[in-house]
Amino acid sequence: MQDNTKSPYILVVNDDGIYAPGIASLAESMKKIGDVVVVAPLSEQSAVGHAITLLSPLRVTKCSKNDEFFGYGVSGTPADCVKIAYWALLKEREPDLVISGINHGSNTGINVIYSGTASAATEGTILGIPSIAISLATYDEPDFSLAAKFARKLAAKVLAEGIRKGTYLNVNIPPIPEDRIEGIEITRQGMAAYRENFDIRVDPHKKTYYWLSGQKMNLKEEPPDTDDLAILNNKISITPIHYDLTHYASLSELRSWNFDLITNENK
Amino acid sequence: MQDNTKSPYILVVNDDGIYAPGIASLAESMKKIGDVVVVAPLSEQSAVGHAITLLSPLRVTKCSKNDEFFGYGVSGTPADCVKIAYWALLKEREPDLVISGINHGSNTGINVIYSGTASAATEGTILGIPSIAISLATYDEPDFSLAAKFARKLAAKVLAEGIRKGTYLNVNIPPIPEDRIEGIEITRQGMAAYRENFDIRVDPHKKTYYWLSGQKMNLKEEPPDTDDLAILNNKISITPIHYDLTHYASLSELRSWNFDLITNENK
Repeated sequence: MQDNTKSPYILVVNDDGIYAPGIASLAESMKKIGDVVVVAPLSEQSAVGHAITLLSPLRVTKCSKNDEFFGYGVSGTPADCVKIAYWALLKEREPDLVISGINHGSNTGINVIYSGTASAATEGTILGIPSIAISLATYDEPDFSLAAKFARKLAAKVLAEGIRKGTYLNVNIPPIPEDRIEGIEITRQGMAAYRENFDIRVDPHKKTYYWLSGQKMNLKEEPPDTDDLAILNNKISITPIHYDLTHYASLSELRSWNFDLITNENK
Repeated sequence: MQDNTKSPYILVVNDDGIYAPGIASLAESMKKIGDVVVVAPLSEQSAVGHAITLLSPLRVTKCSKNDEFFGYGVSGTPADCVKIAYWALLKEREPDLVISGINHGSNTGINVIYSGTASAATEGTILGIPSIAISLATYDEPDFSLAAKFARKLAAKVLAEGIRKGTYLNVNIPPIPEDRIEGIEITRQGMAAYRENFDIRVDPHKKTYYWLSGQKMNLKEEPPDTDDLAILNNKISITPIHYDLTHYASLSELRSWNFDLITNENK
């Protein structure tokens, strides 16, 4: 929880890149409730998952919008941005909140594991900072205004009340006007699988290449409290996410396996 | 569970790249229990997390080792490899097992979320195929022989008995001779945080660059049933991992928040 005597310090990140319109809307909205610093990838990083850059160095560039300093562009991933912000660029002041987005496109269901937007919020969480990921569930021409407003109100609430250690809020906004929103739902991550397709094409040099496309299957058979269903039902979804991937229910089952046998036979 | 009348079909993947020695050891070991197909990244993909390639196409190259066909090299990530194997290259026969590794370096604790090795096993799991990720916990000159042998025995067990839907086994092997192994432990993912450091350097053109390094802190204060502690105690660790990132215990807590207030105020 923040120190109420001073303005909260808010780190804004994304994965669509520092020049994307979604992060401009988000930063502008956050400035109404705190001191904002933007640290975001220089180029689009969609579907980078939780990648970090180890094999090459990172560069940091000061970026302007409308002739004003907007933020730090990083030659890396969303996770890199949070790490370099915390450990190098913002050393003198720890952020009170990390907020990632507004992503152009949903981050629901199993997509959360591929999401750079989500990975930035995960990094904030690992650092012990309350974190939010926010996405607008459309690939069409986006209107970020409702998402930006909701982000601000949710951020204010999180700053005031805190959030459970080790979790962040993954928020998805349906792409409809505010008066058509059917409510806000606390959801779980959907588990609908994808049917993938690889387009097999031939390039001008007669070589084959493969291009991934795919779509979620059987969405309507998902349990009603999933993020995907909430969006389909015109609700804002908020899913609490953590990064302990252990499947606890399997522990006792596996402990009953006879593992000694595995090591000793045919030694 | 496999059809016992025919040899199991085993998809071998990694993130160190198709020419890394760890995948050669793994493929050779797996050939003793089944029909093996290798589909792996052409170049090292460490710390790519659960990235998939959407913005560019993938190329597939037939790769040889010692003048024999070894496998398919893919110009993408470990997750791409499993997807393209399943949906394009191996369409005629579904793998009975996906096994990813042997990674040169551990994949324990929060590293699991950055791990390409783990992401390949996650993709197998999403496809409903029993999956294993296996890593050798050293950055020194590796000896993969014990890991390769253990992988084979564990794979045979998983093929015979199956594994709980939606989970895979994340295996880490201590870098010591077999007679010094203190046992096999079913573990949970450690939660020790990193203390990161960015080396700030100046290039020959007088420009600053940042290079990430870091180390896990307070490892010895971890609970005794974590993967990191098992490795420190010379035990093989096996962690059941799933990809439902929902923090279920937070759901009811968040449902008590007054969200109506958030949308209605200052509408």
